[in-house]
Amino acid sequence: MGRILDNITSPSGVKDLSNAELEVLASEVRDFLIESVSKTGGHLASNLGVVELTISLFKSFDLEKDKIVWDVGHQCYIHKILTGRKDRFVDLRKYNGLSGFPKRCESKYDTFDTGHSSTSISAALGMARARDIKKEKNEVIAVIGDGALTGGMALEALNDAGFNKTKVIVILNDNQMSIADNVGGLSTHLNKLRMEPKYNRLKSNINETLKTSKAGVKLAKVISRFKDSVKQFVVPSMLFEDMGLKYIGPIDGHDIETMNEVLEMAKEIEEPVIIHVVTSKGKGYELAEKNPNKYHGVSPFDLESGESNTSSKMNYSKAFGNAMIEIAKEDERVVAITAAMPDGTGLKEFSNIYKDRFFDVGIAEQHATTFAAGLAASNMKPVFAVYSTFLQRAFDQVIHDVCIQNMPVVFAIDRAGLVGEDGETHQGIFDISYLSQIPNMTILAPKHTDEVKPMLEFALKQNGPVAIRYPRGGDSNIDITSIKEINYGKWEKINSGEKITIITSGKMLQHTLLAKELLLKEGINPTIINATFIKPLDVEMLKEVAASDNTVITIEDNVTSGGFGSYVLMKLYENGFKNKFKAMGYENKFVHQGDVNLLYKENNLDPEGIAKAVIELSK
Amino acid sequence: MGRILDNITSPSGVKDLSNAELEVLASEVRDFLIESVSKTGGHLASNLGVVELTISLFKSFDLEKDKIVWDVGHQCYIHKILTGRKDRFVDLRKYNGLSGFPKRCESKYDTFDTGHSSTSISAALGMARARDIKKEKNEVIAVIGDGALTGGMALEALNDAGFNKTKVIVILNDNQMSIADNVGGLSTHLNKLRMEPKYNRLKSNINETLKTSKAGVKLAKVISRFKDSVKQFVVPSMLFEDMGLKYIGPIDGHDIETMNEVLEMAKEIEEPVIIHVVTSKGKGYELAEKNPNKYHGVSPFDLESGESNTSSKMNYSKAFGNAMIEIAKEDERVVAITAAMPDGTGLKEFSNIYKDRFFDVGIAEQHATTFAAGLAASNMKPVFAVYSTFLQRAFDQVIHDVCIQNMPVVFAIDRAGLVGEDGETHQGIFDISYLSQIPNMTILAPKHTDEVKPMLEFALKQNGPVAIRYPRGGDSNIDITSIKEINYGKWEKINSGEKITIITSGKMLQHTLLAKELLLKEGINPTIINATFIKPLDVEMLKEVAASDNTVITIEDNVTSGGFGSYVLMKLYENGFKNKFKAMGYENKFVHQGDVNLLYKENNLDPEGIAKAVIELSK
Repeated sequence: MGRILDNITSPSGVKDLSNAELEVLASEVRDFLIESVSKTGGHLASNLGVVELTISLFKSFDLEKDKIVWDVGHQCYIHKILTGRKDRFVDLRKYNGLSGFPKRCESKYDTFDTGHSSTSISAALGMARARDIKKEKNEVIAVIGDGALTGGMALEALNDAGFNKTKVIVILNDNQMSIADNVGGLSTHLNKLRMEPKYNRLKSNINETLKTSKAGVKLAKVISRFKDSVKQFVVPSMLFEDMGLKYIGPIDGHDIETMNEVLEMAKEIEEPVIIHVVTSKGKGYELAEKNPNKYHGVSPFDLESGESNTSSKMNYSKAFGNAMIEIAKEDERVVAITAAMPDGTGLKEFSNIYKDRFFDVGIAEQHATTFAAGLAASNMKPVFAVYSTFLQRAFDQVIHDVCIQNMPVVFAIDRAGLVGEDGETHQGIFDISYLSQIPNMTILAPKHTDEVKPMLEFALKQNGPVAIRYPRGGDSNIDITSIKEINYGKWEKINSGEKITIITSGKMLQHTLLAKELLLKEGINPTIINATFIKPLDVEMLKEVAASDNTVITIEDNVTSGGFGSYVLMKLYENGFKNKFKAMGYENKFVHQGDVNLLYKENNLDPEGIAKAVIELSK
Repeated sequence: MGRILDNITSPSGVKDLSNAELEVLASEVRDFLIESVSKTGGHLASNLGVVELTISLFKSFDLEKDKIVWDVGHQCYIHKILTGRKDRFVDLRKYNGLSGFPKRCESKYDTFDTGHSSTSISAALGMARARDIKKEKNEVIAVIGDGALTGGMALEALNDAGFNKTKVIVILNDNQMSIADNVGGLSTHLNKLRMEPKYNRLKSNINETLKTSKAGVKLAKVISRFKDSVKQFVVPSMLFEDMGLKYIGPIDGHDIETMNEVLEMAKEIEEPVIIHVVTSKGKGYELAEKNPNKYHGVSPFDLESGESNTSSKMNYSKAFGNAMIEIAKEDERVVAITAAMPDGTGLKEFSNIYKDRFFDVGIAEQHATTFAAGLAASNMKPVFAVYSTFLQRAFDQVIHDVCIQNMPVVFAIDRAGLVGEDGETHQGIFDISYLSQIPNMTILAPKHTDEVKPMLEFALKQNGPVAIRYPRGGDSNIDITSIKEINYGKWEKINSGEKITIITSGKMLQHTLLAKELLLKEGINPTIINATFIKPLDVEMLKEVAASDNTVITIEDNVTSGGFGSYVLMKLYENGFKNKFKAMGYENKFVHQGDVNLLYKENNLDPEGIAKAVIELSK
């Protein structure tokens, strides 16, 4: 007998299954998931946590008209498996492969593209209001984690929903963590709800009711009984009720029967409703259950041992974390901030050593930025470690609370440039553009992991905001020139060549140095300048460049729109430059998913691509 | 006998006053405020609402060490009056005059610059954590309105404060409105709290206690009694308590005695505490009490009649509002969104006519943007009307939820360019830079109020995101050329002149046309091109320009960093341009407050400044 799973090619395949069959399906899905992700890598723990939840949603709703919005979206694998995309999991997150996030272009069942957290309730509310205006009948469901609920915009959306009473169903998927352990008053509140003895009573009561249901009593009757008695089952959450939402929960997110019942009930309620579902991240794979952080996003790994071949060599996050620990030892005013990314940003060890000088504010980049400004206003030296795309969330706070006041806040911008498999939403290719435009901002990029510490030390000495941008991963396999003293606004001429001047920084400098090896074989020896400072430009050096007869090429791991190259050209032109010029980067487009090396190649930013462009220009 | 007010030159002047004297002071401050603002214009209603609250804060805290952070900041006038800046109110909000917002550079008692809402708790928390690390002893107080509390970052900050139990005092200044009427589940909740009969009991109980206090009982004793009995006085707000904050309130924000008592009590609590203070916006000036919206921000007005000399001529907000009403009549899918600015954006009348197609989501630009994307995903045609600087708050959502998905959301960007008196935080001089860098975004600027409607119609026909940026106020006094059909990506050559080509748009086009009158007298007749589209550029026309022998000048009401000019130069250069080039705009700086005409003059963007620059370049 084949697997139930193999017969399911669209959501309707789930609807006719009995509860017992749904349990079997859950087990099959879980096996498929563990095996598949062990080969491809991907987000494992979060998907293992929502197997039963997803199946229940597919059972209870009609996805031909009802819409599910997955918050963040990395927990959409089961959704994809059940909507005809199982066979594409071999190419999960690969170049031209299946996305690890919902994508409208991939399936009509993906209702909204996500990537960053806390957006689902807003999007769902938009769909629900559209439905009401068009007088259509369908449900809109937002599935949001307890971590994502700390993001301010999720609370903005709840506030709106609760006030206007638009019917949406919010599934609060409470796994007691976002990527790292959860923080925040809300999480304490949820914890209290989970501890209520009523939680267990709710479960057994529902099971009682379901027995009746199985005996043939019409579901409608069961539901109506639920509606009458719901108040005595559920733990009251005044927090959500005070915001104007009906609250149901907490319920066991691995109990399909219970969830189906509750979801049927939620359909009948004509107000916005929040269903608090408790799940275990990593459920069903022992190693992941024990260590969900480690299995949040994984490389391919061995099923038995759980071990993957991740490299232990130095990377920028580690270099940053190490530097912070050493610097904090010397300067008591140095403090570190993260928005729910203590591991990813390399701050975990710092947080253990300097408990009182480490602040994880939850998924809350806006708050983190202004909080940093508040610390700086009181004479501390805050370093906010944040991924390039996540800082987009705090653009206004960077302008207002940091730059207008010229506050000495250091932004340690990790994952600047391409990140690869996470795709469009996570490629850090805008920070040069969005930060360069802001007055008072200084932007640096280390040419090597060894330069992270001196740059951080330099940044902490400044009297205004400084951003240090560095890529995901570590260094290219090159001999980098020695680390020199950093002088404000001064670039570094790596070598003096002929006819062509390349100005670049960070990872692109490393690619350029590799390109140079190829170029030397062709008899081309370009001058290479390390733009240690992306902002301000080294005007002295640019004057020299303008005065030379050289072709100029800028290379940046960023969009060319409003990018480094455009600032360089403007300054060169002011100084009489008239020669050939090319700005290399991403041209007015989003960069899709795939291995970073393939993506660099596609965008001519790998060493070969750079060499080719230089050869072309030197003709 | 002189006024008490005249003897107060620093916060300590308030501390020794008796309650009776404080009442007199409040009355004097209110008179001063009404008279002064009637002459200068400014934010009136919000300041009238916090007269007693501010005085109580000055009485209860020691501002030599305690820090008050005013959210938004337009309610800081009394704070300024009591910190030695009374005599500077003649120049309130004027060029080189007193700022209408807190400014650290103006006074040591201004602890944090504000302008946009919902930042105060984050900043205060930063200061409080700095205090704790340094083992100092002082209070940090955030004063935040109920409207500002709907901004997500305020909730992010409350969540952080409630979890980590850092002592901050949050004064929730509940005047039942932000600028317009308040919306959101939170506001319903606050309303419920205000309706509790206990509210009045609390007041009388406190008065009882105070009588004892006056009779000589030590204050400490009173406080300790308060602490024991506080639970029976106050209405429980599980919402805030659930987030981990102690809640006290609601209390009458115009009763100085009560507030002083409660503030003393709040000092003793060693946890984060939120004090719910109910105030009346406009308090004490009858006209403003009756119509606080109208007196939120005012031009100089007549004290008796309350009338000001505001012009009734057409402006861009009105043109937009009118266009929306007409377009909505023809197309049922068109809906409008505002983030708490129904009046300012010109949507008030629309909201009355199309109740079901108008959404005021509160001060919540992030939510508004993703909500719009959700509407678009369900085939509606959402128009989000928002000020240029407020859209900075939703930068990430514009990238992710609108542009990556290429959602047909229209951004009607009001107050693009200089706004004048509100200063640095409100000048809309970044939107060209921050929007141009985003793939899939189209940006338009009307050359005249008459062009708002055709542009909006054009935008609503597109299959992707479109931003229309237009300035505060109306048109310059010029004859504009007729409105032509808008073709995607096509610019309009206004006239064919000689030697110089000026490329500009919107208000700067109007200034350029005025400059042309001056230039013709000098025998200079530049070609003027209206960049109807700021993005994409009209590459065909730019090729023509590059092929000409002309000097090129771009003019934009935006920073030159990452601005329109930099895109134009890049494209011209690609096409062989080698002539003189100048990009006019704001050069890597924030623009301070003042009359817009003075500011344009200072930045050489008034007609005279433009003419002068052209003459200079034509030499």
